[in-house]
Amino acid sequence: MITHPAYTVEPWGLRETGLDLEVIAESESLFALSNGHIGWRGNLDEGEPHGLPGCYLNGVYESHPLPYAEAGYGYPGAGQAVINVTNGKLIRLLVDDQAFDVRYGRLVAHERVLDFRSGQLRREVEWISPGAKGVRVRSSRLVSLVQRSVAAICYDVEPLEQTVRVMLQSELVANEPLPSSSGGDPRKSAALLAPLVSEEHACGGTGASLLHRTAVSGLRLGVAMEHQIDAPPSMQVSSESLPDLGRVTITATLEPGQRLRVIKFVAYGWSAARTQPAVRDQVAAALAAAVQSGWDGLIAEQRTDLDDFWAGADVEIDGDPPVQQAVRFALFHLLQAGARAEGRAIAAKGSTGPGYDGHAFWDTETFVLRVLTYTAPRAAADALRWRHSILSAALHRAVQLGLKGAVFPWRTIAGPECSGYWPAGAAAFHVGADIADAVVRYVEVTADDAFAREVGLELLAQTARLWCSLGHYDPHRRFRIDGVTGPDEYSAVADNNVYTNLMAQHNLVAAADAAARHPDRAHTLGIDAQEEQRWRDAAAAMVIPYDHALGVHAQDEGFTGHELWDFAATTDAQYPLLLHFPYFDLYRKQVVKQADLVLAMHLRGAAFTIEEKARNFAYYEALTVRDSSLSACTQAVLAAETGHLDLAYDYLTEAALMDLDDLEHNTGDGLHAASLAGIWIALVQGLAGLREHNGSVTFSPQLPAGITGLAVTICVQSRRLHVEITPDATTYRLHDGEPLSVQHDGRPLTVTTAAPISAPNRPTPTREAPTQPPRRAPRRHR
Amino acid sequence: MITHPAYTVEPWGLRETGLDLEVIAESESLFALSNGHIGWRGNLDEGEPHGLPGCYLNGVYESHPLPYAEAGYGYPGAGQAVINVTNGKLIRLLVDDQAFDVRYGRLVAHERVLDFRSGQLRREVEWISPGAKGVRVRSSRLVSLVQRSVAAICYDVEPLEQTVRVMLQSELVANEPLPSSSGGDPRKSAALLAPLVSEEHACGGTGASLLHRTAVSGLRLGVAMEHQIDAPPSMQVSSESLPDLGRVTITATLEPGQRLRVIKFVAYGWSAARTQPAVRDQVAAALAAAVQSGWDGLIAEQRTDLDDFWAGADVEIDGDPPVQQAVRFALFHLLQAGARAEGRAIAAKGSTGPGYDGHAFWDTETFVLRVLTYTAPRAAADALRWRHSILSAALHRAVQLGLKGAVFPWRTIAGPECSGYWPAGAAAFHVGADIADAVVRYVEVTADDAFAREVGLELLAQTARLWCSLGHYDPHRRFRIDGVTGPDEYSAVADNNVYTNLMAQHNLVAAADAAARHPDRAHTLGIDAQEEQRWRDAAAAMVIPYDHALGVHAQDEGFTGHELWDFAATTDAQYPLLLHFPYFDLYRKQVVKQADLVLAMHLRGAAFTIEEKARNFAYYEALTVRDSSLSACTQAVLAAETGHLDLAYDYLTEAALMDLDDLEHNTGDGLHAASLAGIWIALVQGLAGLREHNGSVTFSPQLPAGITGLAVTICVQSRRLHVEITPDATTYRLHDGEPLSVQHDGRPLTVTTAAPISAPNRPTPTREAPTQPPRRAPRRHR
Repeated sequence: MITHPAYTVEPWGLRETGLDLEVIAESESLFALSNGHIGWRGNLDEGEPHGLPGCYLNGVYESHPLPYAEAGYGYPGAGQAVINVTNGKLIRLLVDDQAFDVRYGRLVAHERVLDFRSGQLRREVEWISPGAKGVRVRSSRLVSLVQRSVAAICYDVEPLEQTVRVMLQSELVANEPLPSSSGGDPRKSAALLAPLVSEEHACGGTGASLLHRTAVSGLRLGVAMEHQIDAPPSMQVSSESLPDLGRVTITATLEPGQRLRVIKFVAYGWSAARTQPAVRDQVAAALAAAVQSGWDGLIAEQRTDLDDFWAGADVEIDGDPPVQQAVRFALFHLLQAGARAEGRAIAAKGSTGPGYDGHAFWDTETFVLRVLTYTAPRAAADALRWRHSILSAALHRAVQLGLKGAVFPWRTIAGPECSGYWPAGAAAFHVGADIADAVVRYVEVTADDAFAREVGLELLAQTARLWCSLGHYDPHRRFRIDGVTGPDEYSAVADNNVYTNLMAQHNLVAAADAAARHPDRAHTLGIDAQEEQRWRDAAAAMVIPYDHALGVHAQDEGFTGHELWDFAATTDAQYPLLLHFPYFDLYRKQVVKQADLVLAMHLRGAAFTIEEKARNFAYYEALTVRDSSLSACTQAVLAAETGHLDLAYDYLTEAALMDLDDLEHNTGDGLHAASLAGIWIALVQGLAGLREHNGSVTFSPQLPAGITGLAVTICVQSRRLHVEITPDATTYRLHDGEPLSVQHDGRPLTVTTAAPISAPNRPTPTREAPTQPPRRAPRRHR
Repeated sequence: MITHPAYTVEPWGLRETGLDLEVIAESESLFALSNGHIGWRGNLDEGEPHGLPGCYLNGVYESHPLPYAEAGYGYPGAGQAVINVTNGKLIRLLVDDQAFDVRYGRLVAHERVLDFRSGQLRREVEWISPGAKGVRVRSSRLVSLVQRSVAAICYDVEPLEQTVRVMLQSELVANEPLPSSSGGDPRKSAALLAPLVSEEHACGGTGASLLHRTAVSGLRLGVAMEHQIDAPPSMQVSSESLPDLGRVTITATLEPGQRLRVIKFVAYGWSAARTQPAVRDQVAAALAAAVQSGWDGLIAEQRTDLDDFWAGADVEIDGDPPVQQAVRFALFHLLQAGARAEGRAIAAKGSTGPGYDGHAFWDTETFVLRVLTYTAPRAAADALRWRHSILSAALHRAVQLGLKGAVFPWRTIAGPECSGYWPAGAAAFHVGADIADAVVRYVEVTADDAFAREVGLELLAQTARLWCSLGHYDPHRRFRIDGVTGPDEYSAVADNNVYTNLMAQHNLVAAADAAARHPDRAHTLGIDAQEEQRWRDAAAAMVIPYDHALGVHAQDEGFTGHELWDFAATTDAQYPLLLHFPYFDLYRKQVVKQADLVLAMHLRGAAFTIEEKARNFAYYEALTVRDSSLSACTQAVLAAETGHLDLAYDYLTEAALMDLDDLEHNTGDGLHAASLAGIWIALVQGLAGLREHNGSVTFSPQLPAGITGLAVTICVQSRRLHVEITPDATTYRLHDGEPLSVQHDGRPLTVTTAAPISAPNRPTPTREAPTQPPRRAPRRHR
C-alpha cells in the first residue's frame, strides 16, 4: 500500500510534495502521461532512480514462446508482450560535472503535480549537489491529445546562488536495461530485454532520430527529437547518435538570475507494414508539426481539448474531497488510455506500465468502455473498431476450437489468443458477450447508426453464432452452455454460469434485433430469417440455474452444493487466495474472487426482481473476497440498488483508492484501467443509478450519508446531460441539442435545454446489512 | 500399426523371422529384457540401425524444470525423466574391416526369438558383407531374474564359406546420441541428452568399467563388463577406456569351421547416497559373481526361476493361438517389469522404453498389481512397499495442497508430483484409492499379515485421511467429493465422480477395518476410535449420482446432462480426440476416453445390481472411444459379466494385441504394462470371472464361442490354484497347501489337493448387444 503522506487532496490534480523512493514505481504509474497511442511513465526526467522505466507505443509488442509442461491441442504457441520502446523523455543534467541524481547531494524540495485540466505533469526541484552547487529545475511534460504522435518537455534549470556550469543531455535511448521482474506471481509481466534491433540512427544540429524493429514480431518503430533552446550566449550544442542512442548535449554557464530553458519535442511512429523510409518520414513530419506548434501551441490545444472533455464528463461530489479527486484522476487516465488509441486496444493497464504483458481483456469492454461510452464516445467506438479489426483472428480461433462464429481472445495485443491457462482463459467465453454488450450500449447511448451498421452488426452476429455452437438443447429443449468459466476466476469450467448465460441471451437477442434493423447488411453477412430465429429461440430457452432450497440463483449449476470456503481458517496473509491455494481447491468450493452473479444483476438487471437481487447480493456478499480489482465497483452498484447505501459508499471508496492507495500491490506495473472506470461506475451507476433500457437512459439516484451532492455530466446521443443529485431530489439539465427522454425511478422525463427539471429521489428500502467473509469487509469510508 | 508378417504365432515365444526396419523401434520394445531393476531394449547387438537405443536402471532419472505459460500455486517446479544409462549390450563386429550393419551388404537370414521359458532373447543372422564375405552370427542375451545387477550376452560368429578376419568391439557407452523425440504429442517423452557426468573409467585385461553421476539429480551409477572368449589361437585382445567409453577389442582370423564365441558379463549398480568407491565395488562384486556363475549357470538359474513362475501363473487357451501367445508374452513382460524392482516403482512402460518419461501412474496399482498379486505376489508387495517409501513426499504434498493424509503423485519416478497439467494430474485424487484397493487386494489374496500391519495399514489410513479432508457433508449429511477427475480423462474437475466416490468409500471402510484388526499399530499411527468412526460415517454417507430419468449412473454429477459428442462428424483421423480437440470441448460433452463408471462396476461390483451393470454398460459403451490402452480390458470384463461374451472376446483380443499390433502407435516408446496386464484381466477376470470378496476369491466362468478351453493358475494365500474352464463346466485343483475356500457362481466350494472339484458354468443371459460410437467398435476377434 502506498502510505505516502506527500499526496495532497485537491480537486483538479494529483500533487506529490516530496519524493519517497519506496513507492517510486507506483508514482511512475500514477503520474503516467498517455494519449492512447504514446505512453510515458512518470519517470524522473533524468531517468534514475526509477522503479520501472517505461515508454510504450500502443500495439508495439514482442512475441515470445509460451511454454507448457504438458502441451495440449489448441494451446497458443506464442505470447505477445508490450515492450519498453525508445525512451524519449530522458534529460540528464550535470551540475559542474556532478550528475543530478536525487539520491546524492541534498534534495531541498521536490514537488510533482499531474494537472487534470492542462494535461501536464509538472515538476519543481531544488537540489544541492555534493559539490554544494544549488540548482532549481522546473520541468513540464505532456503527451499530446491533439497531435497523436507527439510528446514534449519544457525543461528549465537555474542556479540557486552561485554560478554553475550545466551540461544537459537530452536523449533517445533504446533497449534500456530493465529491473528483472519478480517470478512466481502470474500477474507480473514477462521480462523482455533488449527487444529492439537498430535499423538506422541519425543526428544533426539540435536533433536526433532512431529507427528500430522488433526482433521477432517484426514491427518497425521510429522516434525523433528536436529542441528549442533559450540560454545565455555561452551555450554550446552538439549532437551524436549510435544504434541505440540519440543525444543532444547542451552546455552553458549560468550565473544567478540566468537560466537554461530547453523545449524538447519528441515524435513517435510505428508500423507493421511500412518501409524504413516511410516510417522515418512519418516521424519527421510529426516532429516538424510539433515544432511548428511550439510549446505554447501544444499546451494551449491540450487545454482546449481537455476543457471540452470535462464539459461532457465531469463528476462533482460534495462532502468527500478524496473521492472527488479520485474520480477526476480516474476520468483523466481513462481519457488518456483511449483518446487516440484509434484502432488499437485499450490494455488493462492502459499505456501506464507493462502489467498483464500489456494485454487487453474483457475488462475493457465491461468496465472501461462503459465509462467512455458516456464520456468520450469516440474513444469507445474506436476501441470496438479494434475488436472488429481482429475479427479474422477470432473467426480463425473458433475454427481451431471446433466452434462457429467468433472466439475473441481472453488476452491479446494484436488479436491472437495469448492465454496460457485455458480454464481461466479460453474457457471464459463470456468475453464475446461482453463485447456484444459494449456494442449494444454504445449504439443505444450514442445512436451511432453508421457504427451499428458497419461494425456493430457483424460483432453481434459473429458472437451470437458462437453461442449457438457453444450451447446445446437438452432433452427438455432448454438451452445449456456447459463447461465455461465466468468472471469469477475462483470457479472454472462449470455448467450454465448465470452471468455467461444471461449475457449470451442478451447477445443473441441483440444480434437478431440488429439484423432486423439492418436487413441488407444482415444479408451481406449471410444472416437469414432462420438464423435470426435460432438466435431468438436459444435466448428464450436459456437455462438460468436457481437454487430453490436456498432461494438464490446459483452462480453456476452445482455451485451452491459445494463446500463453503473455510474463511475462519484463512489468514490475512493468504490473500489473494490464488497465490496460496491451488486452483482445484478454489474451484470446488464456494468462494468468489470477484462479482459474477452480482455483475449479472448489474448488467442484466431486468432479469431479476429486486427481491431476488437483495437475496442474491446477500448470499454472494458473504462469499466474495475481492481478490480482483474489478469487484468493488460492481458490489457498490448492487449495494446501492438493494438499499445498502453505506456499504455502497465503502465499496465506492475502495474502488476510488485502488490505485491511489495501491490496494492490489501492483500499481507499480501500471494503473488498473478497469478499476479507474469502477470509480465512475460506483458513483454514476451505483449512486445515480444510471442504466440503459431499450435506447433510453434511466436513473435511480440516492446518496449515502456523507455525500451531500453529486453532479454528473454524460454524453447521450451527442447531447450533454447534466444530472445533479441532492439527498432529496435530482435535477436534470440538457446543455445542448434536441429534447432527451430519460427515466427517473421508472418514470419518463423529457429534458430540454430550456429549463432544468427536478424530481424527488426514491426512498431507500431498509434491509438487513449483508456480511462479508471475516476481515474481507471493505474499509469504512472516511 | 505393426504390419509385420514376420512374427509367427507360437505358444512360448515371440519369433521374428525377418527384419523390418520400419518397425524396428516397436520390435525393440517387444524384445526388451528386464528384471525390474535393469532394462535393456531389444536393440541389435551392433547398436545400429536402431529405433531408440535404451538401457535403463529403474529409479535412475534426471530432473528438469517444468515450464508454465502461466504459473499457479502448487504447480510442480521440476519434472523427472528416465534416462538412457550406459549401454552395456553393444557388441560391434567388423568383417574384414567392414562394419557388420544389416543396412549394407546382404542380409541372407535374420531371426530373433524372445523365449518366455528360458528368459532369453536369441538372434541368428547370416550376412554377406559388401566385400562378399559371409558370416553367421548367433547371439543370446539375458537380464538375470536371479542376479539382480547382472545381464549377459553369448555372442558367436563364424564364417560361412571363406576365411574372414573379424574384429569384435564389446563396449560400454555412456551418453549415446538419441534420436530427437517428436514434439506436440504430450505422451512423447521429454528428450534428455547427455545426462551423465563421468566420475571414473578403467580397463584392463578383458574388462572395463565406467562410473558416472547424473548432472542435476545427483545419482551415481556404475557399470562394468568382463568377457570369456573362446577363439582360435590367432585371437588377440586389448582394452581401453575413456570417460564415456569402455571397450574390449578382440580380433581373430576364422577359417570355415572355426568360430569366435564371446561371453559378455555386465553388472550395473546405482545409488543416490553411496560414494564413488562403494558403487564401484558393488558393481565389481556383482560382476565377479556373474563370472563365477558363468553363462551356463546364468541360463540354468534363469530357467528354474521362470519354471517356478509359470507353475503359478500360466494361462492356457484352447482355440485361439494368437491370444495364447499374447497372454504369455504379457505375463512374461509383467514379471520382467516387477520381478526385482524391490523398492522402486513399476513404471507405465516398465523398463522397456522412455515413454511417459519413465513415470509410474495409477495404472500400476489398478492393472499391473492386480495381475502380479495373483502371479508374482512378492513383486506386488515390493511395488506397494515403494508407495510406502514415498509416503513422506505424499504427506508433504497434502500439506502443500491444504489437505490431510497423503496425496500420492499422479506421475513420478522418485516420489514428487511431476504432472504439469493439474486438471488431469493433481485433480485425479483417485490414485490414492487405487493404491488402497491394491493394498486390500494384496492382503486378501495373500493373507500377508506382516505386510498388512507394517505397510498396509499406514497406506490405508493416510489415504483415508485424504478423503475425509477432500470431501465434505452437504446440508443433508451426504458426503460429497467435488471437483476431482476420474479415470476418464475426457472429463475433469467434476463433482462426485462415481468411480472416485466408490473407491474412496472402499478405502475408508478398509482403513477402518484394518485399524480394527491392528489396534496397537493403529494407535502408533494416531488412529483413534473417533477417526475410525469418521471414516465409516463418510463411507456410509457417500454420494453416488444416479440419473433417474435415464436409469443409469451418471459418471459424475451433471455428466448425463451434457451434450453428446458428435461422433458422426468425427473422422477416423481425429482419434485420439485429445490430439484434435481442445480439452474444454472434451470435458463438457458426453464422450469417454476410457472406462470410468465401467471400471467402477468392475472394481466395486457389489455396489451395483446386475441390471444396473447391464444398463450402465450399454449407456457408456455408446460413449467410449478407447483413446487409452487402459480401457479395452475393463470393457471386456463388464461385457462378459453382462452376458456379451462375443463382445468380451473382441475387447480381449484388442487388449491382447495392444502392443503386439501397436494399436496406440507408441509401442516404440516402450510396452504398456497396464495393457499387458489387461490381457490377463480380460481372460481371468472377464471370462473366468475372478473377483475378491472379503478374503475369498470368487469365479463366474463363461467362455465365448471360439475359445474352447481356458486354464488359469493363480497364487492364493501361498497356494497354487488351477482353474480349468470348458464351455460347460469348471474344474478347480489345488496344487499345494491347506484346503482353500472359493466361490463358483456365488456358491462356496472347498478345493483341496486331494482331488479336483467341478461345477457347471452359469447360463449366459441374453441381452441386446450394446453399440459403440461409429467406427469405434473393437475389431472382431479372428
